[in-house]
Amino acid sequence: MTDIINSNSESGEKFREQINFLIEIDKIKTIFRKTRLFDNSRTENDAEHSWHLCMYALTLKEYSNEPVDILKVLKMLLIHDLVEIYAGDTFLYSDKTKKQKKKEETDAAKKLFGLLPEEQGEEFLKLWEEFEEEKTAEAKFASALDRLEPVMQNCITKGATWKKHNIKKHQVIEKNNKIENGSEKLWEYASGIIDEAVLKGYLEE
Amino acid sequence: MTDIINSNSESGEKFREQINFLIEIDKIKTIFRKTRLFDNSRTENDAEHSWHLCMYALTLKEYSNEPVDILKVLKMLLIHDLVEIYAGDTFLYSDKTKKQKKKEETDAAKKLFGLLPEEQGEEFLKLWEEFEEEKTAEAKFASALDRLEPVMQNCITKGATWKKHNIKKHQVIEKNNKIENGSEKLWEYASGIIDEAVLKGYLEE
Repeated sequence: MTDIINSNSESGEKFREQINFLIEIDKIKTIFRKTRLFDNSRTENDAEHSWHLCMYALTLKEYSNEPVDILKVLKMLLIHDLVEIYAGDTFLYSDKTKKQKKKEETDAAKKLFGLLPEEQGEEFLKLWEEFEEEKTAEAKFASALDRLEPVMQNCITKGATWKKHNIKKHQVIEKNNKIENGSEKLWEYASGIIDEAVLKGYLEE
Repeated sequence: MTDIINSNSESGEKFREQINFLIEIDKIKTIFRKTRLFDNSRTENDAEHSWHLCMYALTLKEYSNEPVDILKVLKMLLIHDLVEIYAGDTFLYSDKTKKQKKKEETDAAKKLFGLLPEEQGEEFLKLWEEFEEEKTAEAKFASALDRLEPVMQNCITKGATWKKHNIKKHQVIEKNNKIENGSEKLWEYASGIIDEAVLKGYLEE
């Protein structure tokens, strides 16, 4: 498939590695999540999800608990799900142990970012690790957005994914209250719509 | 659809406008382009395309003719196709006049960004106008990437979209040689793979 991309003799090895990486990550468009578009027509894929979270970040930046370097937040959000090209999507409420998931995703990150020239690959790997650790202001805000979108998707689609997988309110709270670490305002909003979802019968108590 | 999102009385008017904007732009995931995924399985939608261009920008930044503010490039790429939610996708080789397209898209931009709090809406509108004018270093580089991706998609899918719409080499060159304004390196690469596409029979001379 990629011969026409690689055969341009004018281009050096570094450029070829970069182009090959950009071709490989196209596969993220075929990794589908459990949650559904707001119009409930189908599930969302990781590329669309990543784009939307970047728009959340630009639009809702002022609600981060701490000041953030927004460029770093965007970079994290753009790459945060690339590991799923090799490791697959893990449902937030999956039984898979944290250790299992961590191992699979770390291997995937090393394989994928290893396609790039060394310096660039290391930058992306570090950004991904920082996002996963949820310790810095940028990682906490980015993770808050990553949790907020599916809550909204469920509320708007009348609990489509929650109902399909028999998710209860206490699970939604447990998995999403970390939103508060990134943004008290967004957690206040998310917990408010979760309560309403229960009242409307979109989510079981 | 959006009552559950709007009814949270804790949230002020500004926040409601921001959330409504984020819900409205979900529709970009249903706007499909003419070009196809690298695996040729289906056409690409605008959300996926915008995400991918951001990854192109991060990965290929060093090949911009002029130094660029990469945050500005990312912002432009994230929002550049939002107008298509109301104006629809215009094929690069469409007969629609520039003036027609410009009018439709400007109206769409005002309508869409008008959903946001004033200051934020104006920032996005200005970024979109700057992108469209292709005068600043950031706009030229972002536009170069916006042209490069479809050339690569066509080359990898053996000219799928070019063949379907009877596009000839001179049209591809005419529409894409502006890549050079943003990046000589990327135009050297793109023109090289266009020549190879002709040799392999993916594109008519």
